[in-house]
Amino acid sequence: MIVKTQSVRFDSISLDGGSTLKPVDVAYQTYGELNARKSNAILVLHAFSGDAHAAGISPETGKPGWWDNMIGPGKAFDTNRYCVICSNVLGGCRGTTGPSSTDPETGRPYAMKFPIITIGDMVRLQKMLVEHLGIARLLTVSGGSMGGMQALEWAVAHPEMVASAMPIATTARHSAQQIAFDEVGRQAVMADPDWAGGDYYGRSLPARGLAVARMVGHITYMSDDSMREKFGRRLQSREQFGFDFEAEFEVESYLRYRGSQFVGRFDPNSYLYITKAMDYFDLANGYGSMAEALERATARFLVISFTSDWLYPSYQSQEIVNALRSRNKDVAYCELNSNYGHDAFLVDVGEQTEMVRGFLARVARVENAL
Amino acid sequence: MIVKTQSVRFDSISLDGGSTLKPVDVAYQTYGELNARKSNAILVLHAFSGDAHAAGISPETGKPGWWDNMIGPGKAFDTNRYCVICSNVLGGCRGTTGPSSTDPETGRPYAMKFPIITIGDMVRLQKMLVEHLGIARLLTVSGGSMGGMQALEWAVAHPEMVASAMPIATTARHSAQQIAFDEVGRQAVMADPDWAGGDYYGRSLPARGLAVARMVGHITYMSDDSMREKFGRRLQSREQFGFDFEAEFEVESYLRYRGSQFVGRFDPNSYLYITKAMDYFDLANGYGSMAEALERATARFLVISFTSDWLYPSYQSQEIVNALRSRNKDVAYCELNSNYGHDAFLVDVGEQTEMVRGFLARVARVENAL
Repeated sequence: MIVKTQSVRFDSISLDGGSTLKPVDVAYQTYGELNARKSNAILVLHAFSGDAHAAGISPETGKPGWWDNMIGPGKAFDTNRYCVICSNVLGGCRGTTGPSSTDPETGRPYAMKFPIITIGDMVRLQKMLVEHLGIARLLTVSGGSMGGMQALEWAVAHPEMVASAMPIATTARHSAQQIAFDEVGRQAVMADPDWAGGDYYGRSLPARGLAVARMVGHITYMSDDSMREKFGRRLQSREQFGFDFEAEFEVESYLRYRGSQFVGRFDPNSYLYITKAMDYFDLANGYGSMAEALERATARFLVISFTSDWLYPSYQSQEIVNALRSRNKDVAYCELNSNYGHDAFLVDVGEQTEMVRGFLARVARVENAL
Repeated sequence: MIVKTQSVRFDSISLDGGSTLKPVDVAYQTYGELNARKSNAILVLHAFSGDAHAAGISPETGKPGWWDNMIGPGKAFDTNRYCVICSNVLGGCRGTTGPSSTDPETGRPYAMKFPIITIGDMVRLQKMLVEHLGIARLLTVSGGSMGGMQALEWAVAHPEMVASAMPIATTARHSAQQIAFDEVGRQAVMADPDWAGGDYYGRSLPARGLAVARMVGHITYMSDDSMREKFGRRLQSREQFGFDFEAEFEVESYLRYRGSQFVGRFDPNSYLYITKAMDYFDLANGYGSMAEALERATARFLVISFTSDWLYPSYQSQEIVNALRSRNKDVAYCELNSNYGHDAFLVDVGEQTEMVRGFLARVARVENAL
């Protein structure tokens, strides 16, 4: 199933920081058919480094989407029944306006003149897209990690538009440790002289800094156990230690590969803006507390976390669940067993599929959507 | 108590990698008096970024040593009873020969021509120092983190010389995750153009790369909980978000400060060599298994780990304890409650003091040492 990325341009968007971006483009893909009543639409929300290509095969790269194991005929998000939409986030670098886009005032990339953006801004742009597609109400908003933050923001900021929300492997606000890991990544990018204050477009990318940032990220996405199972202390193509600084352990060459692979695929300035949006995010902002924010929500919730996820530990999902329960909201919570760490929501989808399928069927029935 | 660093030079040392260093200097400090029988000596072993200044006040910096809360009159390592010795490790940059030392063949710093070193090499040099001081047998060898690896190596490589060993917050071999964190630090250093293949002496230090590496390290030394307690999401000297890329959260400015503070204090090439020594370390090397290695040990063991230490988790200490028990060795194990993560062995020393004091008293009695 080849899926092409589509794009829509809006005249402008107002941002939480007070400024206005004009114009703004959104790249998106859809899977499955929107029914006549437009009542079977699902919005999936990508994580930090994802993009609009959530499912099917990309005609450019030949690669499946980031949630292809969850979206398709007969899968958790069954495209025989639902119409699934995914868009690249504001601030991104895969078709939606971001720091690498052309600033119409200068004719050159925004770079660090791009305004600071928030999770709320990302969701506001998604709302414009959804309304552009003629959809008044989404059957669900669902995503893992930063996608889960967007799902929470949707449920609180635009409650009338979401029948249900599935925040997965996520948090209502970053802890000091999560901010710290993001800050290390930003410092790694900005420490690279090729970053040049963000004005590297058309010159050398800050490739080394971005690769180091990505390496840190990859460690946090896996668990101690899954790294042990995947690599252990196995050596890379050698019988014994070479006693030098080449990559010797398999885990070293894996990290270097993943770091270098990220360069060219992801804009370093988007790395800065999007991690900052995650760090700023606090669902309680403007409401007093997480529970008071969630008081506004009318969606049914399915909250999922994973046992070995130490980047977004289960206690953060439980905080969301407790806040929802304290306001007598409809919430189901599952902590799924997995060895895969934070990556579990992307790779270990057996039980997750069952949970999502059952929850969606109930929501569709209650909403009389199909 | 002002303590001065002393130094001794040896003609040469043979290394595990096959080469020979000549000459080799060792910087060390001592606290308390060696008794006439030289039977009350204790060797403490520093962690990755430590040095010979374990206790008392440095005449240069005015700062206390890294284990000053554990070493002194009436403390865990009671200098009224014991003579405590601490030396800077081989490959270091605080007085002992390392990559920043002058290569006598060229008259310039070794830089990356310094030979790869191992934990076994570090211990071999410590043994030369101990013998130079006329000490035939140590009452204990004790250290946390990389210091614990050295304690294990001492007990296996030179069993006749150690009456007891205290590996604290450590492992008998790095996991894939531990190697991965070390590799990220090395890549951060080597990604800095100022690293210049290691030939930065007399020029600009690779300060930005080293700072990023240190920031990653600091995250791993603390626990999620201790970061939350220390910083939470508090903002740095602002009422609200500034919406920019200056340090806004307190945890950001803390990490930047610790990163920059490390530069100038620690040689970037030592960072590379010492982390590599930790990654190579596997107590089983040459023996078949950890248990077969520890079969050689005759020391009494006190193994300590901390509940919130996720960098050197308790299961790694338990592997050491299980291997010792399987060979019917004398071992006491404590998992101490602490919120401080890996840093606990340095900062949360109340219970640790009780454990060490009691264990040492028993060893001294059995050895008839005092």
